[in-house]
Amino acid sequence: MKSEIIAVGSEMLTPWRQDTNSLYLTEKFNEIGVTVAFKTIVGDRLKDLVGAILVALGRADVVAIIGGLGPTEDDLTREAVAEALTLTLRRDDAQLAALHARAASWRVPMPENNLKQADVLEGATVLPNPNGSAPGQWLDTIFGGYRKLVLLVPGPPSECRPMFDAECLPRLRTVLPVRHIAKRTLRAAMIPESQADKFLAPIYTTYPDIETTILAHAGDIQLTLLCTKADAAAAQQRVDELAGRMEEALEDWLYSSDGESLEQIVLYYLGLRQATLAVAESCTGGMIAERVTRVPGSSRSFLGGAIVYSDELKTAYAGVPSELIARYGAVSKEVAEALAYGIRRHTGATLGLGVTGIAGPTGGSEAKPIGLVYIALSDDQKTEVTEKNFRGDRQRVREWTTQQALDLIRRRLR
Amino acid sequence: MKSEIIAVGSEMLTPWRQDTNSLYLTEKFNEIGVTVAFKTIVGDRLKDLVGAILVALGRADVVAIIGGLGPTEDDLTREAVAEALTLTLRRDDAQLAALHARAASWRVPMPENNLKQADVLEGATVLPNPNGSAPGQWLDTIFGGYRKLVLLVPGPPSECRPMFDAECLPRLRTVLPVRHIAKRTLRAAMIPESQADKFLAPIYTTYPDIETTILAHAGDIQLTLLCTKADAAAAQQRVDELAGRMEEALEDWLYSSDGESLEQIVLYYLGLRQATLAVAESCTGGMIAERVTRVPGSSRSFLGGAIVYSDELKTAYAGVPSELIARYGAVSKEVAEALAYGIRRHTGATLGLGVTGIAGPTGGSEAKPIGLVYIALSDDQKTEVTEKNFRGDRQRVREWTTQQALDLIRRRLR
Repeated sequence: MKSEIIAVGSEMLTPWRQDTNSLYLTEKFNEIGVTVAFKTIVGDRLKDLVGAILVALGRADVVAIIGGLGPTEDDLTREAVAEALTLTLRRDDAQLAALHARAASWRVPMPENNLKQADVLEGATVLPNPNGSAPGQWLDTIFGGYRKLVLLVPGPPSECRPMFDAECLPRLRTVLPVRHIAKRTLRAAMIPESQADKFLAPIYTTYPDIETTILAHAGDIQLTLLCTKADAAAAQQRVDELAGRMEEALEDWLYSSDGESLEQIVLYYLGLRQATLAVAESCTGGMIAERVTRVPGSSRSFLGGAIVYSDELKTAYAGVPSELIARYGAVSKEVAEALAYGIRRHTGATLGLGVTGIAGPTGGSEAKPIGLVYIALSDDQKTEVTEKNFRGDRQRVREWTTQQALDLIRRRLR
Repeated sequence: MKSEIIAVGSEMLTPWRQDTNSLYLTEKFNEIGVTVAFKTIVGDRLKDLVGAILVALGRADVVAIIGGLGPTEDDLTREAVAEALTLTLRRDDAQLAALHARAASWRVPMPENNLKQADVLEGATVLPNPNGSAPGQWLDTIFGGYRKLVLLVPGPPSECRPMFDAECLPRLRTVLPVRHIAKRTLRAAMIPESQADKFLAPIYTTYPDIETTILAHAGDIQLTLLCTKADAAAAQQRVDELAGRMEEALEDWLYSSDGESLEQIVLYYLGLRQATLAVAESCTGGMIAERVTRVPGSSRSFLGGAIVYSDELKTAYAGVPSELIARYGAVSKEVAEALAYGIRRHTGATLGLGVTGIAGPTGGSEAKPIGLVYIALSDDQKTEVTEKNFRGDRQRVREWTTQQALDLIRRRLR
């Protein structure tokens, strides 16, 4: 069964704002076996909106229209659906009463405009909106000789998503054949995307009943496997089988078999080993610590550390001898080692991480180009340093460095 | 003149990936006076793609098709445009030679598949692609009796955007009436969005020839003013007039009159005052330092600091007496003050910032709820502390705290 999502609102045709509700609806549609074949973004103009709805009715079985249900002049979705399907709109008494009750409870006068939110399409079911004033609508109708389901849901994410879950999904399930979805998310670090695909494509292409999606960002690869079947156990068995084969192919690049982030895994291993971590960050400027501390409860294993942007702080907070900096330069193997060793000793952590590099856009030289990074990891046995040359702009170099650093910790603790 | 942007690729119909090229193209289209009336996202299926192109040709003057120009079976944009407009495709000798030269320079054999990238639509101009193998195409044609401009550009942002700038915009300018755009971006910190709109709406609604957009995120408000006119000076004069009135209304919430980020402004003031900054971050875990160090050249004014996640590091790196922590708790006005004062003294910075709070999801109590944050700022005259109660999840509390902290520094230095 094919669906189309229409996001309504002129603000989504500017360079600054994007429809995000459709990502949520797509995930939910997929989970019940509905494919999203088209997405359309259209502004608050009646003619454009009617046209977009007619196009969608012509090419999809389910048309979900998001937005344009509010009280203002610009909210035209009800009128546009009525025009596209030549249906009448009636002002619903129960909805009118609900609007009046809502206004009364807020002790605000009700503007005349608001009343249009009580307009209901001929034959439609009203979908209650506990999070806002505009109700949704569910229409099971015929267009061009075919059955079509038309869903009207409000635009604000806090209203759209709960309504889709509570009102649309159960109704769709009664209409659609019973389908069960099984899902797994594998994640791998620092494997080039092309290499991952070279390893994995020969495997996942032999599972045509599983939808495999690969997302890559700054050294992180996320693989999502999705299988929809009438039988839940069969779907799960297929997904687990493919996941197992992919895990094997990914070898030790794989860090998560169920979607956890790299920082979550690092904290998991730290907890397991009853180990603690401290960081001394130069070019990443706090980015590594920020990622680690996103995880609730990270304070159990993460002590903190120092942002050693200036040379003086490298000495004061991580005990890097100033002669070492003078001799080898702040961006050097030696200074990275001294940072990792020093931050461990200064903080009493089990593991010390030291990072120094040239993020750009200036500060590079022929001997030490932009993107050159040293990452050192120290425990009571040894201090090891990794040299990398990352490509991309300042923020990309910092992101890759952060990912590489977390992956080094994971590999040390595994 | 109306345009439609079609983004081609099945991955953009999943819950995980979104078209972002269209935001870039929209900005560029708007700058030459072309409105984007529709955006369509369609998968790599020939029938769907042909249908989407026909729909777009029926409702827009300019149709920009992004993606589907690569060498794989799934890349069907050339074939779809040919079918929609009943044009032939010819294999272009110059393009073939370019593909062979490219493969030779990379010392890789050329797969048969690659050759389809040399297919050119009847009547189209080839648009060179210095950043990839797939050239673009520009087609000035007639559909249904109307003149239509059809643009084919590759999907990878690093190829799409330079090609649009270098090849499409100059051609569009020769076709379109001359329009000039004037633009200003104002930014304000820590003013509630509803309050900003209450102050500003009565002003900007009296400038119907200026498109005003308001974006809000975690204490940051960005206002973009856009005015398109035949006369450049007239457009600039209007935008400057409105910007002036809005700046006045925003009072000292305004921090930028030309789009700079808050961290850029903070660094600007630090440079101006020849002052330096150091931070001691607890709940934000490095987020403040990370934002400051995003700015190239930040090392001139930013020394670094400490991530004082554990109580021991609050004492070791910022000199907070452990009795103070025992007496008032790590999240307290007193500890924030001691962090700011101590980090300034330990690092020798002109300004010391200390942050402590409860980001959640656990760790709150009735006396100290989740979202309670203390931010202290110390210079050689005084140490002042601000108490806030932020709402939202862990990451939101950290983002609001970071924004508030940077804004306090701005206000101190102004």
